[in-house]
Amino acid sequence: MTGAAGFAHQLGMSLETLNRHRCFEGVQSFHRHQSCATRTAMRFGVYTPPGEGPFPVVWCLAGLTCTEETFAIKAGAQRVAAQLGLMLVTPDTSPRGEGVADDPAYDMGQAAGFYLDATQAPWAAHFQMRAWLEDELPDLIAEALPVADLARQSILGHSMGGHGALTMALRSPQRFRSVSAFAPIVSPLNCPWGEKALSGYLGPDRAAWRAYDACALIADGARVKEILVDQGESDPYLAEQLKPELLEAACAEAGLPLTLRRHAGYDHGYFFIQGFIADHLAWHRERLG
Amino acid sequence: MTGAAGFAHQLGMSLETLNRHRCFEGVQSFHRHQSCATRTAMRFGVYTPPGEGPFPVVWCLAGLTCTEETFAIKAGAQRVAAQLGLMLVTPDTSPRGEGVADDPAYDMGQAAGFYLDATQAPWAAHFQMRAWLEDELPDLIAEALPVADLARQSILGHSMGGHGALTMALRSPQRFRSVSAFAPIVSPLNCPWGEKALSGYLGPDRAAWRAYDACALIADGARVKEILVDQGESDPYLAEQLKPELLEAACAEAGLPLTLRRHAGYDHGYFFIQGFIADHLAWHRERLG
Repeated sequence: MTGAAGFAHQLGMSLETLNRHRCFEGVQSFHRHQSCATRTAMRFGVYTPPGEGPFPVVWCLAGLTCTEETFAIKAGAQRVAAQLGLMLVTPDTSPRGEGVADDPAYDMGQAAGFYLDATQAPWAAHFQMRAWLEDELPDLIAEALPVADLARQSILGHSMGGHGALTMALRSPQRFRSVSAFAPIVSPLNCPWGEKALSGYLGPDRAAWRAYDACALIADGARVKEILVDQGESDPYLAEQLKPELLEAACAEAGLPLTLRRHAGYDHGYFFIQGFIADHLAWHRERLG
Repeated sequence: MTGAAGFAHQLGMSLETLNRHRCFEGVQSFHRHQSCATRTAMRFGVYTPPGEGPFPVVWCLAGLTCTEETFAIKAGAQRVAAQLGLMLVTPDTSPRGEGVADDPAYDMGQAAGFYLDATQAPWAAHFQMRAWLEDELPDLIAEALPVADLARQSILGHSMGGHGALTMALRSPQRFRSVSAFAPIVSPLNCPWGEKALSGYLGPDRAAWRAYDACALIADGARVKEILVDQGESDPYLAEQLKPELLEAACAEAGLPLTLRRHAGYDHGYFFIQGFIADHLAWHRERLG
């Protein structure tokens, strides 16, 4: 994989701005660039709050079926980000387009990249989401959007994106000052979504899955300072796919502080997220200094 | 047209709840019923705030291409409605389905009902949005959702829905305590969207259009106590389609108080609306008592 410095040099000039919308006195914009990691065009959204900057950056990773627009449209986050002076980055959830492998179901392939680097055919050709988000996009943003203060980054995500946020933070604790999630997939090794996706993307050797499993990363010694998770108790995926009790057990075993808030009556979608996004952004803002 | 009492009796029992989502401690729900007015199934969303009720009702009418979900998903209104104790009703923008006339463009037919009762073939068979929203749906809601206090109603809308809100309030000032709009079509008689839609739905006699033109209604003597309008100055439809200066002139001529706020840099979409929805709902709340 090309290193970070190489990516920035190759790609900084290729950033396209697809559209810009004034929003809470800041700007919600959407962008596209030709990614070396995925060998496709990749899209992401940026909310830039009002003011001069530089602004700390909160990465917001979306779930299955979502695009770079979903969190930006549905979470109600811009109002809070404007107040707190946070830049939000909302990446797409997979490579897309003709020539990119896909699966007829919603839980594999396009819009289901699982924030990993695939090693198996036909996925490995383009499904390099970890490389895109860890090696390439931060440098592109640093070069193209200088009001972003990448010395101060936090990350959050929803469902598959909660899995992405937790695993990225656990692999790069020096990069992210804080991590939180809404209804995350906490252990792909232990749920049907994970079984299907990781066996497809990474093959049958389950040892290779552990770098993409928050509970396994913690068991294997990865650490962050603390984790905040909100979970709806009427989430239809709670018992079979999400299993926050596995994260509770892993954190307890490791002595890793976890704040897991269970909310009666709330389900899996953005009508749940929008009710608690202000808490998450305020929590990140405190830790971003 | 069947009277209101008849509608309520026929339809109260047929209300289906499609789904319910807990949201800001209240409930966002979506419903369907078989409409006598449109002779189709019609959908609408309801946000019920936390608490016992009864709650005053704010009707929120969406624009071209939208559904009953659009405002509910994109406006960020539930947070404010929960705080203020307002019920929100978000109707679909037209009849839909097989057997319902349509137009290949986005500005006529399905998702473009213009909140009127069509008189021309093939539209008249189903496009009876005025009858649905004025005669039928209020009684259905009163019967099926008793926490709605229909003695206290206000209305707002966006674009085509702003046209709907203004014209409905001007025709029924006793029903609505207040009316506001985001980027409304203020005069279908004087813009290409209106020319196309009203000539199709109502035929060439422009006298018949005046009941569906806010400026013409005011010129013809209709009155509300006051109007609040927010308009983005970077709205791409501002000069050709929206023309708020026509509403300013009509209100000035009639002595009707209009608060027209022009916002530099904002465009036509929900990234604009979400920044000012709290102002609108607070404004309606004051007037709903």
